[in-house]
Amino acid sequence: MSQSRIITFTTDFGVTDPFVGTMHGVILSINPNAKIVDISHGVQSFDILDGAITIAQAYRYFPADTIHVVVVDPGVGSSRRPILAVTEKHVFIAPDNGVLSLVFEREERLSVRHITSEHYFLQPLSNTFHGRDIFSAVAGWMSKGVEPAKFGDEITDFARFSLPKPKIVDARTLKGVVLKVDKFGNLITNITAEDVPQLFAAAGPFKITVGAAEATSVKTAYAEGATGEVFGIVGSMGYLEIAANRAVAAQLAKAGKGSEVQIVFEQPQFASPAAP
Amino acid sequence: MSQSRIITFTTDFGVTDPFVGTMHGVILSINPNAKIVDISHGVQSFDILDGAITIAQAYRYFPADTIHVVVVDPGVGSSRRPILAVTEKHVFIAPDNGVLSLVFEREERLSVRHITSEHYFLQPLSNTFHGRDIFSAVAGWMSKGVEPAKFGDEITDFARFSLPKPKIVDARTLKGVVLKVDKFGNLITNITAEDVPQLFAAAGPFKITVGAAEATSVKTAYAEGATGEVFGIVGSMGYLEIAANRAVAAQLAKAGKGSEVQIVFEQPQFASPAAP
Amino acid sequence: MSQSRIITFTTDFGVTDPFVGTMHGVILSINPNAKIVDISHGVQSFDILDGAITIAQAYRYFPADTIHVVVVDPGVGSSRRPILAVTEKHVFIAPDNGVLSLVFEREERLSVRHITSEHYFLQPLSNTFHGRDIFSAVAGWMSKGVEPAKFGDEITDFARFSLPKPKIVDARTLKGVVLKVDKFGNLITNITAEDVPQLFAAAGPFKITVGAAEATSVKTAYAEGATGEVFGIVGSMGYLEIAANRAVAAQLAKAGKGSEVQIVFEQPQFASPAAP
Repeated sequence: MSQSRIITFTTDFGVTDPFVGTMHGVILSINPNAKIVDISHGVQSFDILDGAITIAQAYRYFPADTIHVVVVDPGVGSSRRPILAVTEKHVFIAPDNGVLSLVFEREERLSVRHITSEHYFLQPLSNTFHGRDIFSAVAGWMSKGVEPAKFGDEITDFARFSLPKPKIVDARTLKGVVLKVDKFGNLITNITAEDVPQLFAAAGPFKITVGAAEATSVKTAYAEGATGEVFGIVGSMGYLEIAANRAVAAQLAKAGKGSEVQIVFEQPQFASPAAP
Repeated sequence: MSQSRIITFTTDFGVTDPFVGTMHGVILSINPNAKIVDISHGVQSFDILDGAITIAQAYRYFPADTIHVVVVDPGVGSSRRPILAVTEKHVFIAPDNGVLSLVFEREERLSVRHITSEHYFLQPLSNTFHGRDIFSAVAGWMSKGVEPAKFGDEITDFARFSLPKPKIVDARTLKGVVLKVDKFGNLITNITAEDVPQLFAAAGPFKITVGAAEATSVKTAYAEGATGEVFGIVGSMGYLEIAANRAVAAQLAKAGKGSEVQIVFEQPQFASPAAP
Repeated sequence: MSQSRIITFTTDFGVTDPFVGTMHGVILSINPNAKIVDISHGVQSFDILDGAITIAQAYRYFPADTIHVVVVDPGVGSSRRPILAVTEKHVFIAPDNGVLSLVFEREERLSVRHITSEHYFLQPLSNTFHGRDIFSAVAGWMSKGVEPAKFGDEITDFARFSLPKPKIVDARTLKGVVLKVDKFGNLITNITAEDVPQLFAAAGPFKITVGAAEATSVKTAYAEGATGEVFGIVGSMGYLEIAANRAVAAQLAKAGKGSEVQIVFEQPQFASPAAP
């Protein structure tokens, strides 16, 4: 196994403190040949869902054998476990709080271990910065070729959650939610093209409502939008986004993470949901 | 050609989303030995001029054969072309929207190609993230030694714009504009020392006005300014800046990008502009 | 000495301008094999203390022979000197303005040189961007194996300051100050566990006041805090922090950098300070 293995970071640590540099230092002290890539340190503070989305989007584009360190860890120092997850092509090191849930959803072959081998940790071990003392240190040793089994035993009761699914409310109406606002102000929903193929077929007029904005079309490129127009588009993350052309949809809609998204068709489209 | 070639990124993608990490992954999947440098992902959203200034300032300091990927791309998915520009020492990969204009201005030997060889793109090709699917993928293959000609044919009708030039209004007055506010709050204008050599000679009193601020001197170091004083200085980008010592000139002047800058000399300095 | 030596950056340059990319370019043009790590470019503008804290926290985690470039430099272009500091294991390149003070505090063996060998500088030398023209260029040459003595003569009158120390006000009261607010909104004080061991012993009830917040306990993990509770904790930087569980203590306390922190015990704890 090459000692110049890639290690990525996805955290909510920001870039104004010594946290990120410290973690790079820990890894390079263990393995000077590690190749470190910062996926993002801009995950919203304490926001496990935001971290889960970020790593699930990015990891697939890295080469096989990449080690992904994911630290969104409000429970640091509590009884939550550090885990090591090995999928078909990648390795993940993270707290056992669900931040890998969307990776687990995509991966069929999966083995998860509880990291317990303290001799791989930095000493003294703090209660406040396991990103430094546990996660980076373990990543450093792994990148030198230490086998996953050396770090701890396999477990099956690791934490995982599912994304909220959009709901069919009645034959004409589907409701979803905004998962995230991206840097451009696009509102990324939990609705995929598979959830509403009718949006992309000639299924008649519809209205997508989020906050103060109404969209009546889906586009295939941002540049197709008229000035001031809010529209739907399936973005690079695979979700329906409420977007605007060279403008900030979140501001136009006065909406944000957690806002309800409603799609109403003029004609009935959905089999009625089961009666209560 | 070394496989450890340097690839730089200049984008408006920010650092809170998976975009940047994804692009690093794409390149490293194609060429694990590429050396990636992030020049900036903090270009203002959709702001082609800001991107043009950023790459034009930074690229010259990189070694020969560096590949610069520049993605400020509001037209992604529309008919705007992806281009590959080869200058005497560097290579640039960008959308054909003018974001390389200030590079083109500096470079005499220049060959620009329309990137059309889709077998170098990621598949499926999205309409929303060519930074990932086209620009990074092409940079990865280039860094492995694929020749520029393999990516597409040469074109001459690529987009380019000129920076707005300062204007002589009358014998005592020159007007310019603020191009950019830097991280420290300095107001970077479109005026160079060559445009107004009188500022640096003993040409008598002058007043530089921008927003609510008036400057009556040019300094050679930020630290020369008195507390609360706003002054002129030729900054590291080569432009006249309106600055303050350990303070935010943009706030003191209540001015920003696009604000008018006026330099008025007490004594006539300029040949009168042509009568209308 | 290996040419793939690590060079770190700690600056207040931000990530929205070409500054950082330019400095990477300068180093890679001198030594293409240098391994550059950005510790942080998010130091508060002109804030030498913030820079001093950042580098002092992070450098110890890097391997021996790492070169640390620290540029918080409001005096750029004035008479302040560029310096090169060699400690037992590390090298530091910075302006002589005290930004290395907290490194000096930790290091017993220390040799500091005034960098004067201009043939290692970029030419023409600007007055406004020594991060590019001096500090990065010198780091690049150092990483190629140039000996410290080649850059200039040793000096002993370099600038250094001490952190403000907490003060015992009376037998029950100690006062400190907030040094920094971290990305999560934790208020990092200048008080260490050694300053107030009583906080961690069973020394009876106490109240920590900062801004509008009162804390009556110290925790060992952030997750131990109840919703809305503000508490004390010794953080990863070794200082007492005023923190909250998954919430922004700085907002709850309406406090920030420079705010006074007061610890009052119900029972006398401290030897009285000397009478005036």
